[in-house]
Amino acid sequence: MVPFRFLLLFFFLGAAVAESSQTFLQTMTQNVAASAFASDHLYCDSWRFSVETNNARFWRTVPFRCREFVHEYMSGARYASDTDIVVDESLAFARSVQIADDGNDAWIFDVDETLLSNVPYYAINGFGTKVFNETSFNEWVDVGRAPALAASLRLYQELLVSGFQMILLTGRNEAQRKVTEENLLHAGYHSWRSLIFREDSDMGKPGVVFKSERRAELEAQGFRIVASSGDQWSDLLGFPMARRSFKLPNPMYYID
Amino acid sequence: MVPFRFLLLFFFLGAAVAESSQTFLQTMTQNVAASAFASDHLYCDSWRFSVETNNARFWRTVPFRCREFVHEYMSGARYASDTDIVVDESLAFARSVQIADDGNDAWIFDVDETLLSNVPYYAINGFGTKVFNETSFNEWVDVGRAPALAASLRLYQELLVSGFQMILLTGRNEAQRKVTEENLLHAGYHSWRSLIFREDSDMGKPGVVFKSERRAELEAQGFRIVASSGDQWSDLLGFPMARRSFKLPNPMYYID
Repeated sequence: MVPFRFLLLFFFLGAAVAESSQTFLQTMTQNVAASAFASDHLYCDSWRFSVETNNARFWRTVPFRCREFVHEYMSGARYASDTDIVVDESLAFARSVQIADDGNDAWIFDVDETLLSNVPYYAINGFGTKVFNETSFNEWVDVGRAPALAASLRLYQELLVSGFQMILLTGRNEAQRKVTEENLLHAGYHSWRSLIFREDSDMGKPGVVFKSERRAELEAQGFRIVASSGDQWSDLLGFPMARRSFKLPNPMYYID
Repeated sequence: MVPFRFLLLFFFLGAAVAESSQTFLQTMTQNVAASAFASDHLYCDSWRFSVETNNARFWRTVPFRCREFVHEYMSGARYASDTDIVVDESLAFARSVQIADDGNDAWIFDVDETLLSNVPYYAINGFGTKVFNETSFNEWVDVGRAPALAASLRLYQELLVSGFQMILLTGRNEAQRKVTEENLLHAGYHSWRSLIFREDSDMGKPGVVFKSERRAELEAQGFRIVASSGDQWSDLLGFPMARRSFKLPNPMYYID
């Protein structure tokens, strides 16, 4: 009969061999995958930094090696977390503003990827890895079922109660007014003071020019532009500029 | 005698038990640590997004829960990678610029955390988790041994060869001119066209006001401000503005 101490020896030897061979194989496989993942992740995180700080401009598609990164960013917890923190900053500022009684304190919102989310569209169109297709995007717009960006709806509702005038300034065309209004209402937005679209005379203008011109008109009408919220720098830069600008994340596309 | 098949059974059973109990303990410990880490990491990544996009302003210290995150960001591969990609974008733009023969195409650089790196100072002062101490920072400046930010030196050298005029515009005081010049030369910078400091009359002005005024003077002198590089939005915003602005990362401190 094999003495008990031998059984014990086999027991531990077996455990050790099984453990270490499995660990070796796992480690090998993991290392190969992890190093490619880590290198792409580092690059794509830096690419996103450049995009979100307006260093990278005029890009047409997400870099091929960042397709997984952007997919994961948009679908996972990071996009929601980033928008939440921007909204927290926006609210902290809004609460510090002394609102006058004249109804002229305006907060300007962009629409796409700011009030409304087109993530359901981009999710089945490669999350910005494919060149923008105006036809299919307009078909999606015409459905009128883009959901609210949750954090923006929270911001919008509190600003409205505080007495800000909500001005919606979108790069969408005047022809899309009806479906856009319906979509906004369906998503939970209401009581905006005005909803401004691109007119025929604005076609071909860069967003930053079109939106600056409209801000100038708003100021001429007596509005004080307290803040602007948008996912593109072209929503925020140019003159006149809001007192504070809030940049929402968007690593899927660039609008000049 | 115990038959061989029993030994084999003990062998695998032993392996399985040892493996699974160890895995259970490991998993439990890892899960607790990982969930706290993941939650802080997610928050701090979003906080950094807000800082780098100029949504978060007037903050005095890195949030306590982000002290590990910022330490890791600054010391690890991410800071180097982010600055590298910004410099790649800067060079791509620089190469597209038609430089005139009149020596008036200017590229403006900030100094701290742009040309020179104060990471050795911040590394022993909590990476931005402590309130800024002007006395100890000025002592560090007086040593004059801040290293070059590697990516910025690469940019600077190529721009110089291309024929850009290098204008250095810093929030440091005129009294720090000599040590700053020596530090810049020691770090590998040379042949700048001008190095502009805060004068006594600029004390108390926000950086964005001081730097905008200097850009206006440069334009009045005939310079075309092709680009600006800086780690603070106050280096870049305000009027007149450069044709292109390049925001370098800095999650350690905020200057208005």
